[in-house]
Amino acid sequence: MNRTIIQYILGHVLMIEGILLFVPCLTALIYWEKEGFSYLLIAILCFIVGKIMALKKPTNNIFYLKEGCITTALSWIFLSLFGCLPFVLTKEIPFLPDALFETISGFTTTGASILSDVESLSHCSIIWRSFTHWIGGMGVLVFLLAVIPMSGGSHINLMRAESPGPSVGKLVPTVKSTARLLYVIYLGMTVLEFILLIIGGMPVFEAVNISIATAGTGGFGFKNDSMASYSPHIQWIVTIFMILFGINFNAYYYILFRQLKKAINMEEVKTYFAIIGIATTVIFINILHTCSSAFEALTQSAFQVGSIMTSTGFATADFDLWPQTSKSILVMLMFIGACAGSTGGGVKVSRFVIVIKTVFKELRCYIHPKSIQKIKMDGKPVPHEVVRSVNVYFITFFVLFAASILLISLDGHDLITNFTAVTTTINNIGPGLALVGPTQNFGFFSPLSKFVLMFDMLAGRLELFPLLILFHPSVWKENK
Amino acid sequence: MNRTIIQYILGHVLMIEGILLFVPCLTALIYWEKEGFSYLLIAILCFIVGKIMALKKPTNNIFYLKEGCITTALSWIFLSLFGCLPFVLTKEIPFLPDALFETISGFTTTGASILSDVESLSHCSIIWRSFTHWIGGMGVLVFLLAVIPMSGGSHINLMRAESPGPSVGKLVPTVKSTARLLYVIYLGMTVLEFILLIIGGMPVFEAVNISIATAGTGGFGFKNDSMASYSPHIQWIVTIFMILFGINFNAYYYILFRQLKKAINMEEVKTYFAIIGIATTVIFINILHTCSSAFEALTQSAFQVGSIMTSTGFATADFDLWPQTSKSILVMLMFIGACAGSTGGGVKVSRFVIVIKTVFKELRCYIHPKSIQKIKMDGKPVPHEVVRSVNVYFITFFVLFAASILLISLDGHDLITNFTAVTTTINNIGPGLALVGPTQNFGFFSPLSKFVLMFDMLAGRLELFPLLILFHPSVWKENK
Repeated sequence: MNRTIIQYILGHVLMIEGILLFVPCLTALIYWEKEGFSYLLIAILCFIVGKIMALKKPTNNIFYLKEGCITTALSWIFLSLFGCLPFVLTKEIPFLPDALFETISGFTTTGASILSDVESLSHCSIIWRSFTHWIGGMGVLVFLLAVIPMSGGSHINLMRAESPGPSVGKLVPTVKSTARLLYVIYLGMTVLEFILLIIGGMPVFEAVNISIATAGTGGFGFKNDSMASYSPHIQWIVTIFMILFGINFNAYYYILFRQLKKAINMEEVKTYFAIIGIATTVIFINILHTCSSAFEALTQSAFQVGSIMTSTGFATADFDLWPQTSKSILVMLMFIGACAGSTGGGVKVSRFVIVIKTVFKELRCYIHPKSIQKIKMDGKPVPHEVVRSVNVYFITFFVLFAASILLISLDGHDLITNFTAVTTTINNIGPGLALVGPTQNFGFFSPLSKFVLMFDMLAGRLELFPLLILFHPSVWKENK
Repeated sequence: MNRTIIQYILGHVLMIEGILLFVPCLTALIYWEKEGFSYLLIAILCFIVGKIMALKKPTNNIFYLKEGCITTALSWIFLSLFGCLPFVLTKEIPFLPDALFETISGFTTTGASILSDVESLSHCSIIWRSFTHWIGGMGVLVFLLAVIPMSGGSHINLMRAESPGPSVGKLVPTVKSTARLLYVIYLGMTVLEFILLIIGGMPVFEAVNISIATAGTGGFGFKNDSMASYSPHIQWIVTIFMILFGINFNAYYYILFRQLKKAINMEEVKTYFAIIGIATTVIFINILHTCSSAFEALTQSAFQVGSIMTSTGFATADFDLWPQTSKSILVMLMFIGACAGSTGGGVKVSRFVIVIKTVFKELRCYIHPKSIQKIKMDGKPVPHEVVRSVNVYFITFFVLFAASILLISLDGHDLITNFTAVTTTINNIGPGLALVGPTQNFGFFSPLSKFVLMFDMLAGRLELFPLLILFHPSVWKENK
């Protein structure tokens, strides 16, 4: 294993975090908050530790999928460990496991909070929480690839380990320009949302927070009622942008390069919109009698469907009080999630499409055992290896899912709470049902359960295997 | 498609049902119950309809997996449709969908009942309910293969479609003698349990019911409190036999032919016992404080674990009132189920073993991408095709599972009820939690939900694909 390069990259990740921490520092300066000093202190700490780790330049730049996975998993753990320290220092979240939970929830774009009173936080802490979503949404290693010069051609393994979805390709010939292009699209859309929110009459500070939290499909709010108090106008802007950030970024690439037809014909994107349309309609009908007008019912159903399906997790209604059919649909959407190659979480639409096609293929195999069946996507046959890895992903997902529920059930809470707490963390959503419903928080769990849920958030964001292999003994045995 | 042979076999299945219906007739004669006439009438009806269907002898005896699946699925549907008629005629379950639910629940060895007062049933109806478990446990087509002479060598496809588990082999050279041997072991063990229950002081009628319902891992009781009122002595006998009937019958074959070492070394059986042992221990510790003695806690935990894991579904305690950890464990056990090749339901231990090994294999692939990894079971590599089909089985299972929950959520009951109702029917267990808990019944569901759950029971018993292909349009298009 190439330990030098892993350490080298981790060092750079920490240095970048040090730089990013200047965003809350700046916020503190604007609002003249003393909490800013904690952020400054940690920013300097990150930079020093990062510099020391990156001192030794790697002689060998090649690294494989294994190193890619380990680097990614460790980067996210380091980011979270250092990123949570300001919360502890400012005493806004004094208990370390709680602060770590909040930070991992931020970076993984989950948005599940342990805070019961978000409104009492300082401005700089609110910005830092939302900003972790933005960093985590596109991925810090993708950012790293976009900004620092690295030779050697195997960095696609880093991107592969960090990017969501069953298959990762380069949009443009080099990894570096792909990473840059992704960030340009990402930043552009975030700014666009910000402008529209400002036009919609939202104060600047709030618009910054909402737009970066939407972009990362995170979902940390800064009001105790999440987004219920905003006007329908604002709610619709956020709904549309949540849905836009849940689309496979390849579609934007196609649009940018005037290949509109290709973008429109992407099977995953079409399915994504179909699911959103059907779910919104069914929920709309289902909740109509509880709302004062049809428009309100539509606003609420579209917002909640967009928020849950893209794994953002904002809420404009306490959907825990909705009829069972609507609740069941939302829970299903939690599992499906957004498109691959977006900033959203969940199992991903493309995986579901492949899975459904696998089931039909199997049925056809029973009927015509001798004919050769191929699963196709966008008109092209899906490589056997991708189908296999999707199947294995599903299975691993459910194994981890069951184990997590078992572990947190030791706390003695009800099954719905346990079930949806794991669902919402492993799929990086935010709110669940019952005790972890949209008006509740995760503060009441025992430290053990919190660690299980933190693990689930990281596993969900990193698509299971990069995190899981850290626990395989043979990874640490070898030396090279 | 060879329609003649399908019709021919279906005719024989109905004739066999006609003969089997003499068991409740005989019971009615003993207890001098007028309900016996309904059973006699339906017995004659089955025989006549069966005879007519079997009039045309097939000229071509060969049939493939597709025909095997269709025959199996239709057999079970026919069996249930005719088998439910006596309940309607006797007016004990006057509503046809309810009677059908009860009968499918019987044949599929689920044991979920729509009756709130089981004790008011006539003796002949009680015997018929329990007897459906016994027939369904080993499978009616396996029985058919054991008794009627059929030429042509492709009947393994019938057995393959009906028998539980990822791979079905012949124990002895011919299908016929394999089927006979299975029924001999099955009958022998049932009789043994009956004798032990009689020695334990149980009245004959009750001992017959309990032993045949245990053998099929069914779970229909004839007391409103299931088995709670029996002595610990009786409860332990039933616990042990439930667990014995959940073992892969290959193990008994090995024991019968003095290959004890082979039986002991079966990986699936070892895992099965390990899971039972661990689950019983954890639940024992978890419920200790709620019981009056350690012995009572052990009796209760062992009984419930044995009952749920083997998908029998008897209950000696209202486990819906147990602590969350115990409830979560029981729900997990519902999914794991018994061994393949037993009379039990669920996903099956061997499938879980393969699934867990698939996950570990994938992890190793990430670490050593170039090495070739093979999944082994009982020391031998598992064929790629089996691994693939297990993965696809899992995925199909969850797709069906989610769709079912969505459909029954239209009734508006709580999530736990919906979730465990589907869990307990698709895995052929019996009781769930909340509104379908061990002291409740399924009578309150709407007819639509009942049909969904009936479908799930059949799909679970027939291992999904034989039933699902009935709904594939291309099956009915072809003509030959």
